[in-house]
Amino acid sequence: MNEILHGIIPPLVTPLKDRNTLDEVGLERVIERVLGGGVQGVFVLGSTGEASSLSYELRRQVINLSCEIVQDRVPVLVGIADTSLEETLALARYASKCGAYAGVLTTPYYVHAAQDELIAYIEELLSELPLPILLYNMPKLTKLSWEIETVERLMQHQQIIGFKDSSGDMSYTHRLLYAARARPDWSIFVGPESLMAEAVLMGAHGGVNGGAHIAPELLVSLYNAATQHDVKRIHVLQGQLLQLGEVLYGNAGYSGAIFRNLKCALAVLGVCSDFMAPPLRSPTEHERNQMRVALEKLEFVKV
Amino acid sequence: MNEILHGIIPPLVTPLKDRNTLDEVGLERVIERVLGGGVQGVFVLGSTGEASSLSYELRRQVINLSCEIVQDRVPVLVGIADTSLEETLALARYASKCGAYAGVLTTPYYVHAAQDELIAYIEELLSELPLPILLYNMPKLTKLSWEIETVERLMQHQQIIGFKDSSGDMSYTHRLLYAARARPDWSIFVGPESLMAEAVLMGAHGGVNGGAHIAPELLVSLYNAATQHDVKRIHVLQGQLLQLGEVLYGNAGYSGAIFRNLKCALAVLGVCSDFMAPPLRSPTEHERNQMRVALEKLEFVKV
Amino acid sequence: MNEILHGIIPPLVTPLKDRNTLDEVGLERVIERVLGGGVQGVFVLGSTGEASSLSYELRRQVINLSCEIVQDRVPVLVGIADTSLEETLALARYASKCGAYAGVLTTPYYVHAAQDELIAYIEELLSELPLPILLYNMPKLTKLSWEIETVERLMQHQQIIGFKDSSGDMSYTHRLLYAARARPDWSIFVGPESLMAEAVLMGAHGGVNGGAHIAPELLVSLYNAATQHDVKRIHVLQGQLLQLGEVLYGNAGYSGAIFRNLKCALAVLGVCSDFMAPPLRSPTEHERNQMRVALEKLEFVKV
Amino acid sequence: MNEILHGIIPPLVTPLKDRNTLDEVGLERVIERVLGGGVQGVFVLGSTGEASSLSYELRRQVINLSCEIVQDRVPVLVGIADTSLEETLALARYASKCGAYAGVLTTPYYVHAAQDELIAYIEELLSELPLPILLYNMPKLTKLSWEIETVERLMQHQQIIGFKDSSGDMSYTHRLLYAARARPDWSIFVGPESLMAEAVLMGAHGGVNGGAHIAPELLVSLYNAATQHDVKRIHVLQGQLLQLGEVLYGNAGYSGAIFRNLKCALAVLGVCSDFMAPPLRSPTEHERNQMRVALEKLEFVKV
Repeated sequence: MNEILHGIIPPLVTPLKDRNTLDEVGLERVIERVLGGGVQGVFVLGSTGEASSLSYELRRQVINLSCEIVQDRVPVLVGIADTSLEETLALARYASKCGAYAGVLTTPYYVHAAQDELIAYIEELLSELPLPILLYNMPKLTKLSWEIETVERLMQHQQIIGFKDSSGDMSYTHRLLYAARARPDWSIFVGPESLMAEAVLMGAHGGVNGGAHIAPELLVSLYNAATQHDVKRIHVLQGQLLQLGEVLYGNAGYSGAIFRNLKCALAVLGVCSDFMAPPLRSPTEHERNQMRVALEKLEFVKV
Repeated sequence: MNEILHGIIPPLVTPLKDRNTLDEVGLERVIERVLGGGVQGVFVLGSTGEASSLSYELRRQVINLSCEIVQDRVPVLVGIADTSLEETLALARYASKCGAYAGVLTTPYYVHAAQDELIAYIEELLSELPLPILLYNMPKLTKLSWEIETVERLMQHQQIIGFKDSSGDMSYTHRLLYAARARPDWSIFVGPESLMAEAVLMGAHGGVNGGAHIAPELLVSLYNAATQHDVKRIHVLQGQLLQLGEVLYGNAGYSGAIFRNLKCALAVLGVCSDFMAPPLRSPTEHERNQMRVALEKLEFVKV
Repeated sequence: MNEILHGIIPPLVTPLKDRNTLDEVGLERVIERVLGGGVQGVFVLGSTGEASSLSYELRRQVINLSCEIVQDRVPVLVGIADTSLEETLALARYASKCGAYAGVLTTPYYVHAAQDELIAYIEELLSELPLPILLYNMPKLTKLSWEIETVERLMQHQQIIGFKDSSGDMSYTHRLLYAARARPDWSIFVGPESLMAEAVLMGAHGGVNGGAHIAPELLVSLYNAATQHDVKRIHVLQGQLLQLGEVLYGNAGYSGAIFRNLKCALAVLGVCSDFMAPPLRSPTEHERNQMRVALEKLEFVKV
Repeated sequence: MNEILHGIIPPLVTPLKDRNTLDEVGLERVIERVLGGGVQGVFVLGSTGEASSLSYELRRQVINLSCEIVQDRVPVLVGIADTSLEETLALARYASKCGAYAGVLTTPYYVHAAQDELIAYIEELLSELPLPILLYNMPKLTKLSWEIETVERLMQHQQIIGFKDSSGDMSYTHRLLYAARARPDWSIFVGPESLMAEAVLMGAHGGVNGGAHIAPELLVSLYNAATQHDVKRIHVLQGQLLQLGEVLYGNAGYSGAIFRNLKCALAVLGVCSDFMAPPLRSPTEHERNQMRVALEKLEFVKV
């Protein structure tokens, strides 16, 4: 792990038996599925992992078990975002103890804070934080963005090693990439998978893409085509990715439905339970059948 | 406490010595100040109380100490909102044990959920909840609103005893008041204090108003004028309230600054510390001086 | 007309035969209906009047004919909002020539402008404007609000004689009412009809309410109850108003559907055509039937 | 002009002497400047051209003079967006008579309309429209987006020959590009210039980029590098483009300021007047000086 973080790092779902019980076998299968597909890391307890809906005890189980299963084969990133700095620290300490590679941190997501407050918040946190972090930009869910000037200030801290941009706003990503020329050791990932190829073409280091649960080889191949500047191959693979996106996200009008569809597809593929933590509901049998039919039409997904 | 909840119920700030240490003396002074001003209840761990920024251990201390200080003189409402149903339940159980009158609950505030999911979420919660609750509408911070149709469905549950509407959208409040004719035992409060008088005139039961920290008698008098339909007196008191609002909120462009200004005013008045939990910064000495000057101009506030 | 503008001033629909032909008889019937119901003015070419969807030639016909029909029985207000200052001036000149009482003006509604630009824009306009104006706040459609500080600056111009607030944000309205104490000759109206009664109780001068097309007596009675501080009567009439609102707006998810529903109700009542100018579609026969059934249930509307 | 529209097509500013007088010499210089830089078309009366702020008479002058100056050297696209279908038609007829290549059309931008209404609106328009059009997606200013399903429906009309996407949302652009595989004769352009290179790499046909006023060769070279899949050269040129963007847009918090900055830069370069139509204010002498200093630091711009 001497090189910088790069490639496809799926934001793992958290398989559940019920709202407070981990589907441990399911988690293992999910991890083996994506590692088998060639991904370069995993990210647990992100938005897709329903982290905010889980009890802290359950979050610790996810961290511990994921690190055990992965066994240093790839870096394990852990979502440590919280509205409370104290609780973020507690999660980060636990993750560090378990061997996590880095934490991943959105802005606090309840109260509105100003950018200078976000800087002070991060600096207070860093002074006690036992592991490196990536900043995570997710304004649709947190209501706040790390403004580029803020990122430039925070770049001075070596403990921050990269950035995950899920804004979907490539103009922002470009300004970020340009600013990050000051930190060649930084890794910059994008969240929306349809933007991954072009982001990598334009200088980003990879994607944290939910679709890699279902078609890890497709995402990995697309990433490789992008690092090789093979635009013709990108066009072919991007077409497949958009077909996959239509199946996974086409009928989902809000973030919760996207996460549900992902778990539903995994359940259809026999990988794990699709039980959703409240407030999200689990897929219906009808939705599972529709998902099965739709997935079977995708020749690049093994159903 | 046989009658329904009504009147002015301040959403208390949480006085802090540092980010994880309660200013216990300050909390007692805050509570005695508002009780001395005639308020009909207190609400701890709401948005103004920076609940989401506090560790769970600290939240429990706030609940326990508040209930001890109030000693059944008025109802104590406790914010139990969380992104995780499990953690909401844990807080509610603790609050019930301490003697809280009711919980107050926003929608979960990270992931987007659909209205039918919010109904199922509440119903799952109610089946295990040891105390009654008021629903709390705070879309600017939670990104989700309890739609009127959702409220109509949830009204069937006797464990829900009222509603706090901080949307600031009086058209919504009117639809809520109209729907709530089906539950004459419900209490409906509004958050923005400049809307309290007219809301009470139009049928609401009171206000959960931050300004009552600073001028509790003013808010209580305005509430009384509204219940008496004394429109001339309302005009006089509303003018004072707007002057107070200009001091407390005039320069605050976002929710965090509003909470800071309230604590700053309380510190200027010698009531409690104005230390803010991260990610919010504490007031500067300059801001305290400005606040002092501004408060001194308000004849209805004893500085 | 020596007293200041007050009371219920309906924002008239523009009855059409086709997209560029006025339903002249319909317009006359609409005007006589609301005047017969006791309204204190009419407002043509507002948002409800689909002004922005009409050709300029047709807008001039509406102005001319309305002034002719009204014949000074009540003031005629004319919407002169446009994205182009030149075209606003041309409309204002025409309206002045026809005998309109005042123009009504939103912010320009395509490009984003800063508040100091809005002040300069109004001052340039006033220097050439042949008639007094009311400012019109409609941020949902214009994307820009007249900030209170801006209104305070513009208050110095005697040619501005009032304000129509359709923001629906009563906190804003209160700040406006407070600022307008400096201009006791100003008239302040609110757009959303469910807020009219409380706005008048709190100091406003009336409502520009679409529902007055359908139930002008109800709105006028509610206005009178508010000026008389008769809160009990307000509660009764407000209940009827909310029932009317459920019929007119309950199923309308966007502004265009609200305007369509109003015209549909007028057509059902035999008052005028319900043809909608593009881009809005006209009501379907099914929608008309639903509207008829719904209106027949309202005892205070004569179908 | 037998091939499909492609390349860099600047959205021209409208040089003005005063709010209703065209700076004709300035317009000629602007056009010659961009044609000299190698652009493949020009687009007059778009958002950057302040179209909505101009009188119709002035808009006709712009159309007429632009077509005369260009003399068929490249296609002239004309913005025909309006809130009124009648006025759009009138502009389109005039543009057709002057020899414009195509119209460019946003959604109507005042009233909210549903997607089925937008489809009917376009179909009614097409039945009378004398020239082909491109659809123009500008949700930040129009409040409405052409949803992909809507575009798929409208694709059946041969008179629609392309799409300009200024949403800045590359996920949307990808869905559009995928849908447009059904219309290989369509031209798809993106508005934000920092997205042009990647959009072309991923299958788009060019950019309608304001920065081409200032550095047309840079944009044209970047476009060429993208069509040649020369990713290394793209990185170099994209870095220059971001530097230019920092100068032109870095301090602009809203669309009006962006348009002002562009005109200011052109004035500094001696190309045309920087008078802005109301409601936008013209640049100050201080802003011009700052712009001059900033432009002089860009070695790829000749000051």
